[in-house]
Amino acid sequence: MPAPEAPPGSGTAFEVDDELVRNVGVLVDEGQRGMVLNLVADLRPADLARIVAHLPLADARTLFDWIPSEQTADVLPELESALRGDLLDDLTSPEIAALLDQLETDDQADVLGDLAETDSAMADAVLPQLEDAADVRQLLTYGDETAGGLMSTEYVAVLETATVAEATEEVRRLAETLDDVYVVYTIDARGCFVGFVTLKRLLLAPSRTPLAKIAETDVVTVEADLDQEEVARIMERYDLIALPVVSANGHLLGRITIDDVVDVIREEAEEDLQRAVGITGDEEISSSIFAVSRGRLVWLLLGLGGAYISGLVIVGFEDALQVAPVLALFIPIVMAMAGNAGIQSSAIAVQGLASGDIWRSDLVRRIGKELGVALINGLVLSVALALIVVASGFGDDTSRLALTAGLALMVVIVLSTLVGATVPLALSRIGIDPALAMGPFITVSNDILGLTIFFAVATVLYL
Amino acid sequence: MPAPEAPPGSGTAFEVDDELVRNVGVLVDEGQRGMVLNLVADLRPADLARIVAHLPLADARTLFDWIPSEQTADVLPELESALRGDLLDDLTSPEIAALLDQLETDDQADVLGDLAETDSAMADAVLPQLEDAADVRQLLTYGDETAGGLMSTEYVAVLETATVAEATEEVRRLAETLDDVYVVYTIDARGCFVGFVTLKRLLLAPSRTPLAKIAETDVVTVEADLDQEEVARIMERYDLIALPVVSANGHLLGRITIDDVVDVIREEAEEDLQRAVGITGDEEISSSIFAVSRGRLVWLLLGLGGAYISGLVIVGFEDALQVAPVLALFIPIVMAMAGNAGIQSSAIAVQGLASGDIWRSDLVRRIGKELGVALINGLVLSVALALIVVASGFGDDTSRLALTAGLALMVVIVLSTLVGATVPLALSRIGIDPALAMGPFITVSNDILGLTIFFAVATVLYL
Repeated sequence: MPAPEAPPGSGTAFEVDDELVRNVGVLVDEGQRGMVLNLVADLRPADLARIVAHLPLADARTLFDWIPSEQTADVLPELESALRGDLLDDLTSPEIAALLDQLETDDQADVLGDLAETDSAMADAVLPQLEDAADVRQLLTYGDETAGGLMSTEYVAVLETATVAEATEEVRRLAETLDDVYVVYTIDARGCFVGFVTLKRLLLAPSRTPLAKIAETDVVTVEADLDQEEVARIMERYDLIALPVVSANGHLLGRITIDDVVDVIREEAEEDLQRAVGITGDEEISSSIFAVSRGRLVWLLLGLGGAYISGLVIVGFEDALQVAPVLALFIPIVMAMAGNAGIQSSAIAVQGLASGDIWRSDLVRRIGKELGVALINGLVLSVALALIVVASGFGDDTSRLALTAGLALMVVIVLSTLVGATVPLALSRIGIDPALAMGPFITVSNDILGLTIFFAVATVLYL
Repeated sequence: MPAPEAPPGSGTAFEVDDELVRNVGVLVDEGQRGMVLNLVADLRPADLARIVAHLPLADARTLFDWIPSEQTADVLPELESALRGDLLDDLTSPEIAALLDQLETDDQADVLGDLAETDSAMADAVLPQLEDAADVRQLLTYGDETAGGLMSTEYVAVLETATVAEATEEVRRLAETLDDVYVVYTIDARGCFVGFVTLKRLLLAPSRTPLAKIAETDVVTVEADLDQEEVARIMERYDLIALPVVSANGHLLGRITIDDVVDVIREEAEEDLQRAVGITGDEEISSSIFAVSRGRLVWLLLGLGGAYISGLVIVGFEDALQVAPVLALFIPIVMAMAGNAGIQSSAIAVQGLASGDIWRSDLVRRIGKELGVALINGLVLSVALALIVVASGFGDDTSRLALTAGLALMVVIVLSTLVGATVPLALSRIGIDPALAMGPFITVSNDILGLTIFFAVATVLYL
């Protein structure tokens, strides 16, 4: 909604900002209901949700109470689940049911599913009061992160023997409840999915044409239990805006729209990044301090254990350090380089496996390439380190120290790059999520490996 | 294309796998053109592209040469740019132009833009031979990562005074060249963008209705120079499947479809992850060894410099290490914990800023929350470390060592968590990409900070 006075096409005209939130907050505190409703009347649901998310909880509750129920309903799916739970806390089950009735069934199921996690009694009370209770109950039986969990039951489906005119009538009948219709699905007499007719074809074809003559039947479909990442990959790969979901025997169960999948892609990407830095679970901005702490602690504790082993390696070479204390200078360098080189190559392997660009069978080809990269980078970094050592100057030992450090670093970088590149592929082969390799795990194990190599090389060459 | 014998809805029926690639490879080597063409005839472009990407380059060239030009054209936008460049190398400029003519203008511009980077003479030769040379030339003037770079010039636009019947005729006229039409855009007499009519409304409205009566005019539009990340965020936030792009004075320039934006979201997510692990540029699976090496070396060299400083910190406390060599045990622990805690909180800050969930003004609130998390995690980890020390047993010094290590770790975790959380927000405030904070930068600076704190605490409490 660019305001009438804003230039059309201004990318910022619909930005919700600090100032708007502050104004709404102040007006809410002052009880200026009318002014607040005016301010937020034309906001899109996603923008109103952002305001709600940035207000103090008490203000958010008041605002939520003031806005018309249609707007409240539209905002619900846009909120993070923790905050949504807090806001729904104030409402009775008939009130929640009335709100949900204004949403599509997939959103109803999502909201209700989240609610069940914090207040299952309330969720149980709301469900039977919904208009589409049966559909929603069915949707709730599918796993949260599956095609069934993403699909809605709002779609247009007609017999393939129907005519264009009959299909158009069906679109008209459902037009009220269906916002985004792009295609009409066709089914056979047994109710099995056959194909689809785009609205463009429906619009252009003569009204007596049977749909079977103009339907597209070479259609990608998925089953309800397919993982949502796989769903996203399929819609992305084939540039689909809607994807029919069918049962094992071919009955049409629902459809997934691209907007829901875009959210999945974003969520999965955020999850990947979080896993790469060692956060488990799914940390949201509105997560409680304890939830955040728990999600971060798992890997920190494992990292603590691993680092203790690294420490034992160093202490194991205590004699070497007593003889040549300067070796301590290289401990952080070896750790940083082993960790970084390993996490770089592991991230690429994990990404490639996730996108389908790398196949498990590519192992040998990947190792060859990563070896090439590691040799180049190892050489550059080793020379750089040797030059730093020479420039710093360590008396008579300088050249021997430069040689030792450079050579050790070379070996460390090659090995840790290869470990980083191969572990994800190995994990994937034995059916373990390769992303696990990307977390602090690879850093910690490469630290241990790197320190051992460094001190071993130093013992042989330098002492 | 689930094959006729495959159960409908099978998620694997359209999977391209190793075996298919091997078979194609063998048949290509044997010169079995007919059999190869049969095998790949029904493949979707994205699947054929994956086969091409997994074949040895020589086989890929042959396959590319064999398949019908329509299929070749459709595969082009699906390939990684490096591989596409290799394959186009064999063709003449009229051949390339003929292929591009079968694509939409945004894809033509993308392919040509990539080509210009490696072979600008060829790109210059191809451009004037295109049917839509003027449109493509215009599209090429927009930045690669802007709304203009994403949009295509294929859309249906009619005067708002036109009737439903006239608009339908215009859809019919363009139906051949436009695959995915969801809406008809309306413009005023000056050619300025006004709004849109969905095909659903066009289908259901009486044929004499003027579009102005049924058009949606509360429409989000963007200008051509808007960054693609912002475009993605807008389409995602408002659940759009197409987004009109307008000029500063309101003229309709093109439209962006959600499938292109899905690719942007994926790319940006991959880029974020790569930056988080210290890879600059955009490493693709088909990137050359030298390109990969260069992209990874930048941060490794910076990391080497930073780690050298960490090393100097340790050497600076050489006396302490000579007196109490056991302190070396804690060097990897301090480094791992400082690095991990910092990168966790910085990743959340960067993610929140990118998604718009965290605003720059949230600094104080964020610090408060991160402080809470850091205190809890610091306490748990410090106690864990103290217990490990006690369990390991270090003679008379055990309890003093446990206290020293625990206390130092507590301080290190709190400080490095806060550094990780605040640096991205600070960078964002002064207009620098906050994602820069997430790379090895935060790990390295926290290493230096952590080691200094640890040895300072140890000097005071333990020596």
